[in-house]
Amino acid sequence: MLALAGIPLGFRFRFLEPGPDPPVRDLGEVVRGDYDDPDSLRTFGKGLELATYEFENVPAAALERLTDEIPVFPPPSILALTQDRLREKEALGRLDIATADHLPVRERGELDQALNRLGVPAVLKTRRFGYDGKGQRVIRSPGGLDAAWSELGGRPLVLEAFVPFRRELSLIAVRDRAGGIVCYPLIENRHEGGILLLSRAPAEAVPADLQDQAEALVTRILEDQEYVGALAVEFFETDDGLLVNEVAPRVHNSGHWTQDGAVCSQFENHLRAIADLPLGKSEARGSSAMVNLIGKLPDPARILALPGTHLHLYGKAPRPGRKLGHVNVTGADAGQVDQRLAAVLSEIGLGEEREEGGQATQRSQRP
Amino acid sequence: MLALAGIPLGFRFRFLEPGPDPPVRDLGEVVRGDYDDPDSLRTFGKGLELATYEFENVPAAALERLTDEIPVFPPPSILALTQDRLREKEALGRLDIATADHLPVRERGELDQALNRLGVPAVLKTRRFGYDGKGQRVIRSPGGLDAAWSELGGRPLVLEAFVPFRRELSLIAVRDRAGGIVCYPLIENRHEGGILLLSRAPAEAVPADLQDQAEALVTRILEDQEYVGALAVEFFETDDGLLVNEVAPRVHNSGHWTQDGAVCSQFENHLRAIADLPLGKSEARGSSAMVNLIGKLPDPARILALPGTHLHLYGKAPRPGRKLGHVNVTGADAGQVDQRLAAVLSEIGLGEEREEGGQATQRSQRP
Repeated sequence: MLALAGIPLGFRFRFLEPGPDPPVRDLGEVVRGDYDDPDSLRTFGKGLELATYEFENVPAAALERLTDEIPVFPPPSILALTQDRLREKEALGRLDIATADHLPVRERGELDQALNRLGVPAVLKTRRFGYDGKGQRVIRSPGGLDAAWSELGGRPLVLEAFVPFRRELSLIAVRDRAGGIVCYPLIENRHEGGILLLSRAPAEAVPADLQDQAEALVTRILEDQEYVGALAVEFFETDDGLLVNEVAPRVHNSGHWTQDGAVCSQFENHLRAIADLPLGKSEARGSSAMVNLIGKLPDPARILALPGTHLHLYGKAPRPGRKLGHVNVTGADAGQVDQRLAAVLSEIGLGEEREEGGQATQRSQRP
Repeated sequence: MLALAGIPLGFRFRFLEPGPDPPVRDLGEVVRGDYDDPDSLRTFGKGLELATYEFENVPAAALERLTDEIPVFPPPSILALTQDRLREKEALGRLDIATADHLPVRERGELDQALNRLGVPAVLKTRRFGYDGKGQRVIRSPGGLDAAWSELGGRPLVLEAFVPFRRELSLIAVRDRAGGIVCYPLIENRHEGGILLLSRAPAEAVPADLQDQAEALVTRILEDQEYVGALAVEFFETDDGLLVNEVAPRVHNSGHWTQDGAVCSQFENHLRAIADLPLGKSEARGSSAMVNLIGKLPDPARILALPGTHLHLYGKAPRPGRKLGHVNVTGADAGQVDQRLAAVLSEIGLGEEREEGGQATQRSQRP
């Protein structure tokens, strides 16, 4: 999606890709190789003006090595934080940004102590390489500790207190090389089984000070990290204000609606930022929603027959739990988008789903 | 631009391209070969589901040959009309659609007779292979006949009466394989030296019956030709109503604004039509303009710094008179787009241009 946004700007692309037959196969040159293979990295970087990444589990060391040859944006240093839940929360704490109460857990004994202090329910998570709900386990009573430990123990873990949130929000911001920042409107997100299911933007019932507060928090992160590019911050909205759930140093699934619902998409703005071009406007055009297509694809004809739908397929083979594409839904206002969204959800077999209460399911921290 | 619109729909592309280093080089497989080379055509068509074209001077015979192997949309039969100005006008006449008065000219003697009947000014044009103002010559007095003949004579020609038009409009319509039709709002166009310079959409001061009249004319053409895909019709708006200037069986330069200014672009709708998918909505989102970048490219950073601009570059080497890209300008309403458009025209060195009167310059019939 970055390449599709960048080709009209006159950019050409090369991709470093470990797997066979990648979705980008038709959008530029593909260098097949592992991220941490020095030869592949050299071949990849040769002659490029700059590099970026849109997968946050790329080894930070590989990106650091690449910076010896070409500029890499966002600065790879941020991965040292965002690839480790504990270090991320510590960094946010240093910036006076609130997160869920949490404690590190290295051994079984620490788990009991941490649960005593944080109470139930709580969530045990691996510190590294979690995504789409993987690597985490809800603990509803002390009796659940053994099962959680047998699944996740042996790796560095963190236990987090359950946050009684009203809803999940995210903010996507883009910072350019001169330090200019644009922020998209707050987005409301809904997860299922740890995977982002749908986003609505602009989120409804957002007072101006909530948008301002979110932008101020994100600006603090961007400036602290001397960040360049698109960054997403996921929040829990609670009775006590916004709590940061996680930071993603990349274009973000909850911002895919911007392809059809904002003046300039997150993809184009990310490219503008890293290429030292002026940022585009982040304002919404009407109201939008985004629905992920997970595991299996609907009949494209039936989706496209619905009003205001925009289909975005990734060229990936179907597999349970895999994000294969998304449908953006646009409309003049939230009411129209609600109706159109209901038709899309019904078409992909999710029309019967009830809205979940804030604590009914635990969600992914790496969507 | 078709490929960029089609990749998110899950389509993959192969291109038949006679020239080296084509703009589509990064968007799929390129088969290098002449349009009328049977081997190239076979290699190109092998295994494809269907083919389309977006260049109307592809030899009709080549497309007809391709239909032996795979479906080709729009139906190549329409090229027999649109590749010949005289046959196009005759076909429109059979459908009771008004065009400029005209007479065929094969020899020098016929030219004098034709000018006697049509009067001055008139325009002498080659019947085939004209585009962007090439292959035509305005005749302002009988004294200009010799020069016009020496430039264009020897080929089949047509002499057209000059049309005293108020403005140039175009309508883009898309017909699907089941016969469903969507029409975009009327577009107002301005040419310079025979090349489309800018388009505004929706055109201002268009009464509902003018839009209805244009849609009725275009629908008559689409249905007569059993057309499938996007088709553009250029009109002169005159005191006596709409006159058809020309028909283009393809996505059209005057519809490029739909990429950023319509719910579903002409490119996506063309693909939906030929792939037997439901058509998308053709309604405008706010107001839009499109400015062609001709001959040389402006500094992208300066264009992107202007509000509401969307840059679309084609990856072509600069050359005088060559269309290298376009800038779409979007805004809430025509007034806002006027302001933004003025800034873009100023940036690309066209800010001082005066609006031309209807008869001040003759325009291209193959933009």
